[in-house]
Amino acid sequence: MNKESLKNLLERVKTGEISTDEAYQNLLNLPYAELGYAKIDNHREMRTGYPEVVFGQGKTAEQLKGILEYLLSTGNNILATRITPEMFEGVKNISDKAEYHETARCITIRQKKPVYPETPIAIVTAGTSDLPVAEEAAVTAEIFDNKVLRFFDVGVAGIHRLFNNLDEIRKARVVVAIAGMEGALPSVVGGLVDKPVIAVPTSIGYGANFEGLSALLGMLTSCATGLSVVNIDNGFGAAYQASMINKL
Amino acid sequence: MNKESLKNLLERVKTGEISTDEAYQNLLNLPYAELGYAKIDNHREMRTGYPEVVFGQGKTAEQLKGILEYLLSTGNNILATRITPEMFEGVKNISDKAEYHETARCITIRQKKPVYPETPIAIVTAGTSDLPVAEEAAVTAEIFDNKVLRFFDVGVAGIHRLFNNLDEIRKARVVVAIAGMEGALPSVVGGLVDKPVIAVPTSIGYGANFEGLSALLGMLTSCATGLSVVNIDNGFGAAYQASMINKL
Amino acid sequence: MNKESLKNLLERVKTGEISTDEAYQNLLNLPYAELGYAKIDNHREMRTGYPEVVFGQGKTAEQLKGILEYLLSTGNNILATRITPEMFEGVKNISDKAEYHETARCITIRQKKPVYPETPIAIVTAGTSDLPVAEEAAVTAEIFDNKVLRFFDVGVAGIHRLFNNLDEIRKARVVVAIAGMEGALPSVVGGLVDKPVIAVPTSIGYGANFEGLSALLGMLTSCATGLSVVNIDNGFGAAYQASMINKL
Amino acid sequence: MNKESLKNLLERVKTGEISTDEAYQNLLNLPYAELGYAKIDNHREMRTGYPEVVFGQGKTAEQLKGILEYLLSTGNNILATRITPEMFEGVKNISDKAEYHETARCITIRQKKPVYPETPIAIVTAGTSDLPVAEEAAVTAEIFDNKVLRFFDVGVAGIHRLFNNLDEIRKARVVVAIAGMEGALPSVVGGLVDKPVIAVPTSIGYGANFEGLSALLGMLTSCATGLSVVNIDNGFGAAYQASMINKL
Amino acid sequence: MNKESLKNLLERVKTGEISTDEAYQNLLNLPYAELGYAKIDNHREMRTGYPEVVFGQGKTAEQLKGILEYLLSTGNNILATRITPEMFEGVKNISDKAEYHETARCITIRQKKPVYPETPIAIVTAGTSDLPVAEEAAVTAEIFDNKVLRFFDVGVAGIHRLFNNLDEIRKARVVVAIAGMEGALPSVVGGLVDKPVIAVPTSIGYGANFEGLSALLGMLTSCATGLSVVNIDNGFGAAYQASMINKL
Amino acid sequence: MNKESLKNLLERVKTGEISTDEAYQNLLNLPYAELGYAKIDNHREMRTGYPEVVFGQGKTAEQLKGILEYLLSTGNNILATRITPEMFEGVKNISDKAEYHETARCITIRQKKPVYPETPIAIVTAGTSDLPVAEEAAVTAEIFDNKVLRFFDVGVAGIHRLFNNLDEIRKARVVVAIAGMEGALPSVVGGLVDKPVIAVPTSIGYGANFEGLSALLGMLTSCATGLSVVNIDNGFGAAYQASMINKL
Amino acid sequence: MNKESLKNLLERVKTGEISTDEAYQNLLNLPYAELGYAKIDNHREMRTGYPEVVFGQGKTAEQLKGILEYLLSTGNNILATRITPEMFEGVKNISDKAEYHETARCITIRQKKPVYPETPIAIVTAGTSDLPVAEEAAVTAEIFDNKVLRFFDVGVAGIHRLFNNLDEIRKARVVVAIAGMEGALPSVVGGLVDKPVIAVPTSIGYGANFEGLSALLGMLTSCATGLSVVNIDNGFGAAYQASMINKL
Amino acid sequence: MNKESLKNLLERVKTGEISTDEAYQNLLNLPYAELGYAKIDNHREMRTGYPEVVFGQGKTAEQLKGILEYLLSTGNNILATRITPEMFEGVKNISDKAEYHETARCITIRQKKPVYPETPIAIVTAGTSDLPVAEEAAVTAEIFDNKVLRFFDVGVAGIHRLFNNLDEIRKARVVVAIAGMEGALPSVVGGLVDKPVIAVPTSIGYGANFEGLSALLGMLTSCATGLSVVNIDNGFGAAYQASMINKL
Repeated sequence: MNKESLKNLLERVKTGEISTDEAYQNLLNLPYAELGYAKIDNHREMRTGYPEVVFGQGKTAEQLKGILEYLLSTGNNILATRITPEMFEGVKNISDKAEYHETARCITIRQKKPVYPETPIAIVTAGTSDLPVAEEAAVTAEIFDNKVLRFFDVGVAGIHRLFNNLDEIRKARVVVAIAGMEGALPSVVGGLVDKPVIAVPTSIGYGANFEGLSALLGMLTSCATGLSVVNIDNGFGAAYQASMINKL
Repeated sequence: MNKESLKNLLERVKTGEISTDEAYQNLLNLPYAELGYAKIDNHREMRTGYPEVVFGQGKTAEQLKGILEYLLSTGNNILATRITPEMFEGVKNISDKAEYHETARCITIRQKKPVYPETPIAIVTAGTSDLPVAEEAAVTAEIFDNKVLRFFDVGVAGIHRLFNNLDEIRKARVVVAIAGMEGALPSVVGGLVDKPVIAVPTSIGYGANFEGLSALLGMLTSCATGLSVVNIDNGFGAAYQASMINKL
Repeated sequence: MNKESLKNLLERVKTGEISTDEAYQNLLNLPYAELGYAKIDNHREMRTGYPEVVFGQGKTAEQLKGILEYLLSTGNNILATRITPEMFEGVKNISDKAEYHETARCITIRQKKPVYPETPIAIVTAGTSDLPVAEEAAVTAEIFDNKVLRFFDVGVAGIHRLFNNLDEIRKARVVVAIAGMEGALPSVVGGLVDKPVIAVPTSIGYGANFEGLSALLGMLTSCATGLSVVNIDNGFGAAYQASMINKL
Repeated sequence: MNKESLKNLLERVKTGEISTDEAYQNLLNLPYAELGYAKIDNHREMRTGYPEVVFGQGKTAEQLKGILEYLLSTGNNILATRITPEMFEGVKNISDKAEYHETARCITIRQKKPVYPETPIAIVTAGTSDLPVAEEAAVTAEIFDNKVLRFFDVGVAGIHRLFNNLDEIRKARVVVAIAGMEGALPSVVGGLVDKPVIAVPTSIGYGANFEGLSALLGMLTSCATGLSVVNIDNGFGAAYQASMINKL
Repeated sequence: MNKESLKNLLERVKTGEISTDEAYQNLLNLPYAELGYAKIDNHREMRTGYPEVVFGQGKTAEQLKGILEYLLSTGNNILATRITPEMFEGVKNISDKAEYHETARCITIRQKKPVYPETPIAIVTAGTSDLPVAEEAAVTAEIFDNKVLRFFDVGVAGIHRLFNNLDEIRKARVVVAIAGMEGALPSVVGGLVDKPVIAVPTSIGYGANFEGLSALLGMLTSCATGLSVVNIDNGFGAAYQASMINKL
Repeated sequence: MNKESLKNLLERVKTGEISTDEAYQNLLNLPYAELGYAKIDNHREMRTGYPEVVFGQGKTAEQLKGILEYLLSTGNNILATRITPEMFEGVKNISDKAEYHETARCITIRQKKPVYPETPIAIVTAGTSDLPVAEEAAVTAEIFDNKVLRFFDVGVAGIHRLFNNLDEIRKARVVVAIAGMEGALPSVVGGLVDKPVIAVPTSIGYGANFEGLSALLGMLTSCATGLSVVNIDNGFGAAYQASMINKL
Repeated sequence: MNKESLKNLLERVKTGEISTDEAYQNLLNLPYAELGYAKIDNHREMRTGYPEVVFGQGKTAEQLKGILEYLLSTGNNILATRITPEMFEGVKNISDKAEYHETARCITIRQKKPVYPETPIAIVTAGTSDLPVAEEAAVTAEIFDNKVLRFFDVGVAGIHRLFNNLDEIRKARVVVAIAGMEGALPSVVGGLVDKPVIAVPTSIGYGANFEGLSALLGMLTSCATGLSVVNIDNGFGAAYQASMINKL
Repeated sequence: MNKESLKNLLERVKTGEISTDEAYQNLLNLPYAELGYAKIDNHREMRTGYPEVVFGQGKTAEQLKGILEYLLSTGNNILATRITPEMFEGVKNISDKAEYHETARCITIRQKKPVYPETPIAIVTAGTSDLPVAEEAAVTAEIFDNKVLRFFDVGVAGIHRLFNNLDEIRKARVVVAIAGMEGALPSVVGGLVDKPVIAVPTSIGYGANFEGLSALLGMLTSCATGLSVVNIDNGFGAAYQASMINKL
């Protein structure tokens, strides 16, 4: 329930369109819905503008199904991240709108028609191996009603690949820049565009990469400005903030 | 030189207002000005919308003075960060507009009248000891022509201090949330506001804080969404991105 | 053998109720029972007030069975932690009182009737994924004869879920607060209740979580007071100390 | 203001003993007192049972003085930790009850007569170099109205020194065990007493000690049970929780 | 070939007992035997007093077999460590003297009659889970012709188990003390015996144990003297040095 | 396309040997070839003198096949590293020149006749377990048209094995020195030869090796001069630079 | 008091040579002498064969003086380590036998005539900068009545310097090998001598040395056998164990 | 003494030009000169082609002077690194050729006329603060008889500064690329030039830079090829290897 729907409900109470009893039933779960193993935060949309998203990792099949079924009943769009193909098998029957994004390892269920802001979000990656993180970001941005421009494999080892796409990238209102290994791409992008850049380190690499640490530290200490960083492999988080910025 | 001034210059060449020779002299330093020990990036404003800022730490007094003098000549507003009182003593004569912000450890020289966007930037801190970082952020946001709302010492150990200020914080278009120790404040803020939150870990703490590591890791792994993180104690970087977002 | 049973034994020797020979046999294993691969610490209950608990991880099926059989013979309640379902299969026949707690990954064998202190222990978790650690804590507290209040999924990203349960939490004599990711929940709880809080970081998270490090450092550097911390995922240890405190 | 004084105030309003205006003035600062650079948490005592303590490190002389003066006006006992002799010089005139504890680096101002619980708190240290942390703990426990038993330099390298004091240590209701280097003392103590042990790692050592890391990790992974841990050198935090436990 | 057998060979050349050609063939492999993928260090025994030992981990079955066959031909005793049961299956036919030690994960082939020094080596462990490391140490010490005294599960959580065995432990000429978790046992042993103690941290533990790091740092920073440390889980290395010391 | 072939193409356009249309088709992919999931950097050979190499890890079978097929069409030699036997099975039919190097885990496809520089590259390893990294280096150096001298298992524990091969090693123009564990071999080699040494730490070891960290730090802090270091297990990178140096 | 003097005392009680009262006074401090801030472990010599040594770091001048005065009264030789010249100034008057070793930063007071074992201890260092640690080891070994052979600056970058001294080094019964940076020296020494080697990492170096970490990890993961390791810069600890071994 | 001078000496012995006695005196110090606290490696030049360089850090003024005086007597060029102005004051009188390089913190004494190879070495830095490391590299390369091209402050935040200098950089035979913070410059350079690149991380930065760790890890995990890395701030080491490569 978002701010508009709450006001609308109260209006309808005032005009007698619905009884106070009906309104009461509607408002009972306003703060959160109790599922026993989870407390689904219905109030969240009102506070933050976004409905709750399901983080699949570590959840059992039953827990996932229960949460999705509840969310379906709210009529909102649904995003579940970190979902294995096996997990999707177990829940795909809950709605024929449920779509599985293999590379992104996400489920989306679109229940509302999108209304896009004018500007797109650009998602750029350093290498081919960063695709799963990039697609998690792209799927997230899209289910949150944003247009997405994808620029993959434009890392600094062959920097002309980035320059060739620079004009297109500059059309976006905010850039999500994704890289593993030394994570230098966001620094270079940050020096070339006049938009906020959200940097995502990935765990791609080996040895002194220490599962993404090298890219993470590199992005945090970037000499470029206008850059902020999210957790290693957190394509979702970057796209979430990018969407917030894109809709300001 | 920004995009407008470049176009204007070319127009004036076309109309004969200035000679090609004069234009040539103007354009000579377009990519960067060579100071020997530094190459000042004049083209930056055109690429990123912001003029270069001086990072004072590790620079000698001569280098600092030389760079500031060059920047003064461009007519832009100037920001120099990580400046000790001693360093300011050595350069304060270069302009009577030079102002030293003691808590923030910054110099600002305002040469242009500010044009503010409608929305302010909120800066919230967990504790009193986070003030130097918070003021670095505030001074940065202000010299970049933003209004700033300050909320200091509202950390999670006495969380009602945050709640009491929530309505005011929500008026901002973007929030800079600053905390040391366990760095929990941005997580809580991120769950309560519907605006992008830029989290700044500080090195305030001791022992297992490991000079800001605990706050940094905490913010990167936050359970709240809509959050991104900058380097430890990097008030400047957070405000820079916040300003970018505020002006979109 | 605890202090009471030892005194009782000696009394019975004095009164001639049992022969010195019988007493000798009883006392032979007083310091510890030698199983070859393990020395079971019988004297522990006398020193610390609690019988030995079996840490299952890394033990072979034979070792586990041998130790449980010995402990059964003492007549005490038994707790074995970090037990996989497979391990339980191999030992479940040793007693029809043996109960396997799946989420908690624990075996309990209750041989004595519980005597509960008046006050309960509260166990609160930040997320659904923290349940295994929370249940390990709850099962431990219960087999040590404590009443447990469970509050799951009340993390700081939707902090009103915590506030809604605050009155209930405050009824406990001691609080076990469990969280992964940035581990902010114990800080917030510590600022809101006037009881000792034992914080348990969990390994829930990814990337900069570094298998629980972010939550661990966060809790150790908490700005809240009245907080102490146990090892990552150590639900047992937290409940053990909570039980000690609850019975003071 | 604690729970009793609030109820009392309301009673006096009811009986007309004080006017609502006077009550209003009293209640104005109930949530927190605004000092500009700090928000003193007056509500804290009501929530947690303890008044706010001043953490001196990183505070300017003015800030410290301002905060102490405000706290003096509340009539509570005052504790300020991490205070250098120079800082004390700057504030010692605010009250002739102000006392500086050199080894502990603390200021205490006792404004209320102590009411001691029956049981003492035991503070044990491994070495002589752990004294500053131990004294911070002792001073904290004492200003919070606890009796303290001190056992210094009883580390495991000469373990009979611990055994010789064991009977005395066991008289306490809770034990604070402090050690640097490998931090083994709390493990040994935890195996010998039947009371909660709060372990404090210190930064005493060199090389692989990594400023307290070895002791910290050792205590967190202790094979003893009934143990919880606070931050490196955090004598205050350990005593705070010990006091809470001692007064349950 | 050790010093004695080389001198003997040269004597026999001198006396004409063997021809120079035969001696040449014997000496050809003196520095090392070339197996292509390995250079077996025959000269080692002469330099260090011990023949080469095979570290199995990371070797293929063929490599292991080839090396063992070569070593068999030298007539020395053979030790191969870090051998899985599968690896042993693949090589057990090379000699009917080949013996597999399951807990220790070692192969020994005894080809020479042992000559024991008078004094034994004591091997003490903190817990049952340390047995694989302890047995690797014991098997190593034994194949190098030492008597071994085993004291398992005598860790500091129940320290009387150590005291009960102290008289026996003191009979050894050198002590190998093995512990995981916080690794406190060697510190306590080092304070109680007047013999060199070689400490072995094990990777037993979880969370802040960081795969043996807590025990390793603890042992390196031990407050006890007369202690030195080997790598995590390196039972072999500790026994090797203990054997050297035992035979001085 | 390298510098020569580009000049040649332009010459042929000038002389009318090929039409501008044909030339256009040839030049279309000059900056990079777009495969959708990858942008193959054709311009690289012109910038750096070496064609692109395929890093197999993390690529799907389809991606690998697509990239190899494209590279085959360029007529260049091809190297793919970090290829499992299963991956090779899926692509081996693309060319009968495709060769799989099992120990090195590499595919090579030689399409051009080698032209060797006069001097060889020496590859030395400390132990037998370093062979996979050494062979990755050797196969890389060979497909880049270098002669390779191999010296395996000459680590510092039996340093005479190194001395016996020193004259041969000194014949090389550049030395790749590979070691795990403490990684001391490059330091010793660097002190004995007058050629650049490229050091490769390997992840061989256990415990305090921390997956190659000990060898990496050791090589970076080497007391020998003339040494530089590549990532852990990066045989390819070392050979790549060695080849560059060998062809200067 | 060592074992002999205790037996002697008891003999004299038996023969009436001293009264039981006198014996009582003698035995009063047997377990430890209470200095308030320290408990001097008199029993230690009986348990471990060595009197207590004073670790100066972190002790105040008064504490140091008090402890030394007490130790003087026992008639034993005295060693105080980590003593600055200023600290020595404050205590040098307590005995005209007090000697300050500048490079070693130690005080020794010899009160007993030395009785040397036949074999010396060899101390070898990699570089000139390791001297302070080496001299701490040498002074320790000498005050414990050992002859010391010094071999300084024989590191692996110029390995012939080590070989030239090898015959002399082999005369020792035990070798203390000291190195900073990559710490390779003990590995090489361990492969060349047939005596136990105690390795001491030093904090000499910069950057990736991380204050001795690189040398520490290198020594712990050494490919040589017969090696054990002490804490970074712990010359005292190495010499203590070496002395123990030398006197077996 | 290098190979030529040794051969020359032997020739002169053969021809009777010098007596064997004189030759003996000359050869006495061939392996190394014994200064007591240091063993100067005269043989080094013969083995590695370069005379010994003095690492000043941690040396006393006397040690430095003694070593420089000895080196002066060999007639070679001399380089001493990590020299403070104070240290230079103490030794500057030993030769009027002694030159102090302030930014580089080096002393050079040129005693031989330089013979330059045809190609220069390029030294590029990301920022102004990297100058001390860059100058250490430049001074090293120059005293080793190389021409040096300097390109300072061309980091990736304003990448056109690099592109503008690319043609000049490509003239070098080998490139030393120096950067702090995220250390991305060498990756970009490595993708743009066809020469070996030696990367030097610097400790410039703060927070998550962890004294150069971020730059170090970034360079080690670079996606560019043809790159190798030296220790943090090790300008000397990079130039040493660059000089070796430049003279092949």
